[in-house]
Amino acid sequence: MKHYLSIKDIDNLSEWVKEARILKSQPKADKNLGANKTICLLFFNNSLRTRLSTQKAAMNLGLDVMVMNFGSEGWALEYGDGTIMNQNTSEHIKEAAQVVSQYCDIVAIRAFPSLTDKEQDEAEVVLNGFKKYTSIPVVNMESSVGHPLQALADAITLDEQNTKARPKVVLSWAPHPKALPHAVANSFVEMMGLQEADFVITHPEGYELNEAITQNATIEYDQKKALENADFVYVKNWSSYKDYGKILIQDPNWMMTKEKLGSAKFMHCLPVRRNVVVEDAVLDSDQSLVIEQANNRTYSAQIVLKKILESL
Amino acid sequence: MKHYLSIKDIDNLSEWVKEARILKSQPKADKNLGANKTICLLFFNNSLRTRLSTQKAAMNLGLDVMVMNFGSEGWALEYGDGTIMNQNTSEHIKEAAQVVSQYCDIVAIRAFPSLTDKEQDEAEVVLNGFKKYTSIPVVNMESSVGHPLQALADAITLDEQNTKARPKVVLSWAPHPKALPHAVANSFVEMMGLQEADFVITHPEGYELNEAITQNATIEYDQKKALENADFVYVKNWSSYKDYGKILIQDPNWMMTKEKLGSAKFMHCLPVRRNVVVEDAVLDSDQSLVIEQANNRTYSAQIVLKKILESL
Amino acid sequence: MKHYLSIKDIDNLSEWVKEARILKSQPKADKNLGANKTICLLFFNNSLRTRLSTQKAAMNLGLDVMVMNFGSEGWALEYGDGTIMNQNTSEHIKEAAQVVSQYCDIVAIRAFPSLTDKEQDEAEVVLNGFKKYTSIPVVNMESSVGHPLQALADAITLDEQNTKARPKVVLSWAPHPKALPHAVANSFVEMMGLQEADFVITHPEGYELNEAITQNATIEYDQKKALENADFVYVKNWSSYKDYGKILIQDPNWMMTKEKLGSAKFMHCLPVRRNVVVEDAVLDSDQSLVIEQANNRTYSAQIVLKKILESL
Repeated sequence: MKHYLSIKDIDNLSEWVKEARILKSQPKADKNLGANKTICLLFFNNSLRTRLSTQKAAMNLGLDVMVMNFGSEGWALEYGDGTIMNQNTSEHIKEAAQVVSQYCDIVAIRAFPSLTDKEQDEAEVVLNGFKKYTSIPVVNMESSVGHPLQALADAITLDEQNTKARPKVVLSWAPHPKALPHAVANSFVEMMGLQEADFVITHPEGYELNEAITQNATIEYDQKKALENADFVYVKNWSSYKDYGKILIQDPNWMMTKEKLGSAKFMHCLPVRRNVVVEDAVLDSDQSLVIEQANNRTYSAQIVLKKILESL
Repeated sequence: MKHYLSIKDIDNLSEWVKEARILKSQPKADKNLGANKTICLLFFNNSLRTRLSTQKAAMNLGLDVMVMNFGSEGWALEYGDGTIMNQNTSEHIKEAAQVVSQYCDIVAIRAFPSLTDKEQDEAEVVLNGFKKYTSIPVVNMESSVGHPLQALADAITLDEQNTKARPKVVLSWAPHPKALPHAVANSFVEMMGLQEADFVITHPEGYELNEAITQNATIEYDQKKALENADFVYVKNWSSYKDYGKILIQDPNWMMTKEKLGSAKFMHCLPVRRNVVVEDAVLDSDQSLVIEQANNRTYSAQIVLKKILESL
Repeated sequence: MKHYLSIKDIDNLSEWVKEARILKSQPKADKNLGANKTICLLFFNNSLRTRLSTQKAAMNLGLDVMVMNFGSEGWALEYGDGTIMNQNTSEHIKEAAQVVSQYCDIVAIRAFPSLTDKEQDEAEVVLNGFKKYTSIPVVNMESSVGHPLQALADAITLDEQNTKARPKVVLSWAPHPKALPHAVANSFVEMMGLQEADFVITHPEGYELNEAITQNATIEYDQKKALENADFVYVKNWSSYKDYGKILIQDPNWMMTKEKLGSAKFMHCLPVRRNVVVEDAVLDSDQSLVIEQANNRTYSAQIVLKKILESL
């Protein structure tokens, strides 16, 4: 594997999950694999789980790690071709990407969408800019349209917790006071497409995700119906995709409650706003898997970095 | 020892100081103790000495270190129970603390007080939040009410410099243009309570520290009288505790001078405002121990981390 | 060698370049040299290349690295002697420098000029403050008046690319929308003074660099004439030195083009504003050495740190 940019880069999900669970049982088994190699983590946005878990995974593999908050510590980047750079950007992605690859063997990047310019967001200028101009493997630590390290951690968590041949998994939209990206939902949907499961997406009308991603998934606008007999309920807010980046409704009836959840397991990528997205009673119960999901971020990153290191 | 939250967590001060001085003579002697273990340093506030000395101590013990400026790099935390999180906070301490403990074996935290809400400051929501919800040891890198790594470094410095069976040690308040926390003074007073010494606190009326902390200490409002025959003078500003967080006076007569100091040794935790808190002539003289105190921060942190690692 | 503050600290440039090129061919050969030693990288300003390449070089030598953004993570420093510190600065360079040296064996510092106060900029208060008050070696990661790690990397690049006994090297000023420092140009001129070359500086009138630095260099105000038969063209903007920190002209005719460049190699320290400083056609051609220069930053830093470690 060269890059890990989206769920599409996983050639065999069940095999990866199996290997990740072995890594989890002995995280330091490959501690010489990354010797004399360096990974750069470039953050264009805030991060808690991704920042710590990716560092941890890299250290488990014996990699040297350099962490950089590109926005505040580096230079404002230009992405346009042929731009006369006499405004606010002082370095072009062409140079930045090539330069970073002089100092490390792998680069991991977090770059959120604007949520104002759909075309530019979908072009993934930061991630694809690095991919295009760098000579080293690029790992997506959450881009405009995907968060494949999260979805892989979710797959590990599902595998650990699932007891059925074909579990029912529901992705349920939730209200939120701020406009949020589609990345987590997109990658979860793509990952579920690689699983044996009865998968349903539920959200209010107007909150349809990109059809190119949901084309093979079932969409049920009635949340109650969608949740019937669910084994796992993944709750997540996202802003409208059609009416790009807009908050159409904040209806509190879409919040996940203990009552609605029934006996299903609760999943969320975190951070989560309590009593807005989901009530305390769910998060504080044994049905919540959120901490397990966060824990599995380490092994999701570690299996990805391991595969990249093995093909360097 | 599980946590190091306050001076009260020291079971035998003279023994710890003795061990710290041995570490100082051979800082790398335990460099395998932290192998395959990770410490997270979470800063909610600025730091120079604590940032560098705690990293250094951790590296001396062979720990992997992840440093994070939580305020600017992570998410705004919520501490209230049952809050409907539809305002500015996006992650609850319950999740944040549990999540961080998935990625490291020890967490160290710096979180200053607001100095506007006494009750909330004394509840130590950040430090105690992590303590309550995390499963790993928590180290206090200066909280609202205490700075026990500093006071332990001060104890090491006193032990190195003291030649008397019962030295006279004075904690002398100093003027300062900004309202400062009580943490350093509190922990110093608590630490002195574990020492054989003639200990006197001097400050203008209205600047009494929390009585629960100073109950066994002598308070002398007349600075001149307090300083008579002093062997060590620890100078520090703090804002009013009674009139919480307020600056009552800035009387320059309370500044420490060479004349007032006499033949005593001068101590301060740094950073220090020259010619406001203490005059140049003191800091630039051989009587100043401030750089030694800063140096001992490494061994104070290292003995604490060593004891935690030994009981993991 | 004790410090690396300017090009003047290079005792034998051709020998250093030769050694750096050997290091480049086996970067990990000295990976035990820095064992049990620590370097602090203190950034008072933004950085991409310097941040990553200096870390990389230090790790190649087995040093532990602590990176600190002093401005945002530490305390505002005071540099004046005898100042009554009752304003915005909370720590004096005297303490800060001594304190940092308690925690590391080498300190590297980036501190840009104000470009408003020539006298203060030339006093290099940050760099010289650390040099004066610290007991450990100080490395200049770009100060007010010099960027000797960059110029040493440039010397390595020239050595790798040059095929002539006496190449013609031109330093050509370029327009830029912001007022930039003289540091890169100064160090490049000083470095060229140690080379066998036909060296010419070209810039519009009013953009003369400090005469103390350019005294032995040829200045040719006619860019076309200057570029005749050039083998290497180093392009760089700087603000006026005489009319300190001012932008006198932004004449786009001074931009470097493929046509003007002829068959010469193009050099720039980066970041570079495309189509303002130099046109795309140059940067995107094989004549551009900018990525090689960036790559050589690692070996420039590594040879400097190696020499410092060897004399510790």
